[in-house]
Amino acid sequence: MLPDPLKKFIDLFSSLPGIGPRQSVRLGYYLVNQGKAAIDELAKGVAGLGTLSNCTHCFRIAKAGARGLCPVCADPQRIQNLVAIVEKDTDVMSLEQAKKYRGTYLVLGDLAKDGFLSPQQKLRLNFLKSRVKQFPDGKLEEMIVALNPTSYGDIQAALIIEELKPFAKKITRLGRGLPTGGEIEFADEETLGGAIDNRI
Amino acid sequence: MLPDPLKKFIDLFSSLPGIGPRQSVRLGYYLVNQGKAAIDELAKGVAGLGTLSNCTHCFRIAKAGARGLCPVCADPQRIQNLVAIVEKDTDVMSLEQAKKYRGTYLVLGDLAKDGFLSPQQKLRLNFLKSRVKQFPDGKLEEMIVALNPTSYGDIQAALIIEELKPFAKKITRLGRGLPTGGEIEFADEETLGGAIDNRI
Repeated sequence: MLPDPLKKFIDLFSSLPGIGPRQSVRLGYYLVNQGKAAIDELAKGVAGLGTLSNCTHCFRIAKAGARGLCPVCADPQRIQNLVAIVEKDTDVMSLEQAKKYRGTYLVLGDLAKDGFLSPQQKLRLNFLKSRVKQFPDGKLEEMIVALNPTSYGDIQAALIIEELKPFAKKITRLGRGLPTGGEIEFADEETLGGAIDNRI
Repeated sequence: MLPDPLKKFIDLFSSLPGIGPRQSVRLGYYLVNQGKAAIDELAKGVAGLGTLSNCTHCFRIAKAGARGLCPVCADPQRIQNLVAIVEKDTDVMSLEQAKKYRGTYLVLGDLAKDGFLSPQQKLRLNFLKSRVKQFPDGKLEEMIVALNPTSYGDIQAALIIEELKPFAKKITRLGRGLPTGGEIEFADEETLGGAIDNRI
């Protein structure tokens, strides 16, 4: 009933996370109505993603520069023996936007809710270890375990800290407390408890 | 901060209906992580939409066959002087799935909520008129105005009926009543009223 190219499009799109079959149908018809130029531009936009790859140091997704490094890892101004361990690329984006951090990163990739690290995540941590071993004193000056302040994040952070303890002089986590602009009246107990423990 | 191809992808995707900027960011990273083969397949799937066009008779989106006709319009078994006027391609899909209709279609395209027909919709109706004029008796045997049974649909239907009255021996609309499988207890007043008016 549906023309083949539309069927193909709907199959592909509805397999993407967060896009359902009905939305795919609507998108397909919408795009055909936009005309060939718009379709080709979108196709090119998708294909362009194929030029990106993981940074060979921090595993962020980036347009690979010299030695396959992302702009942060390639930047001589960034502190190489200060590493923040983050879950996602978008976490790097957020931290960079805060413009407070001058170190480098290690992106683990989406953490599973079962509390275990995936083989890929272990590989990334091992890669960091072997890189750190080549530093003059074989240790990071500081490692910031910048995982989400959730119960899952806390479990994973504990695992990672245990694993990387021998490779860093100091291990820290992101501060916990009231979000700036937040009100004490509306803060939940956990947040308020954190704010009391970590008062400044 | 974001690599260019990712920025481009996010711009394009977040301009699609129903897809927001945050979802576009997530999709972009998701796709890069899927690898180049998956990305290229998706790009090809999008580009494939460019091979589709509007049927020259009913304006449905289809892979154009002989004389630019869609499979329904090209089918000699379909009754040419019975035409259902529908809003969307997806409405044709639904009607075809009911396997009860042996006539042809005219797809108007999304109706505006202001109650007016767009220039493109007027062109499509005019095209139907000029096609009907060439029929042996210059009239359709029957025209079914198959718009949604909403207040907007009713207004638009009245407009279209007024406009096409001289071109059809009989003008009908889709039956109104209780949906099959529905319960009287939970039917709204309008639906029940329709079911009483149109009892069978």
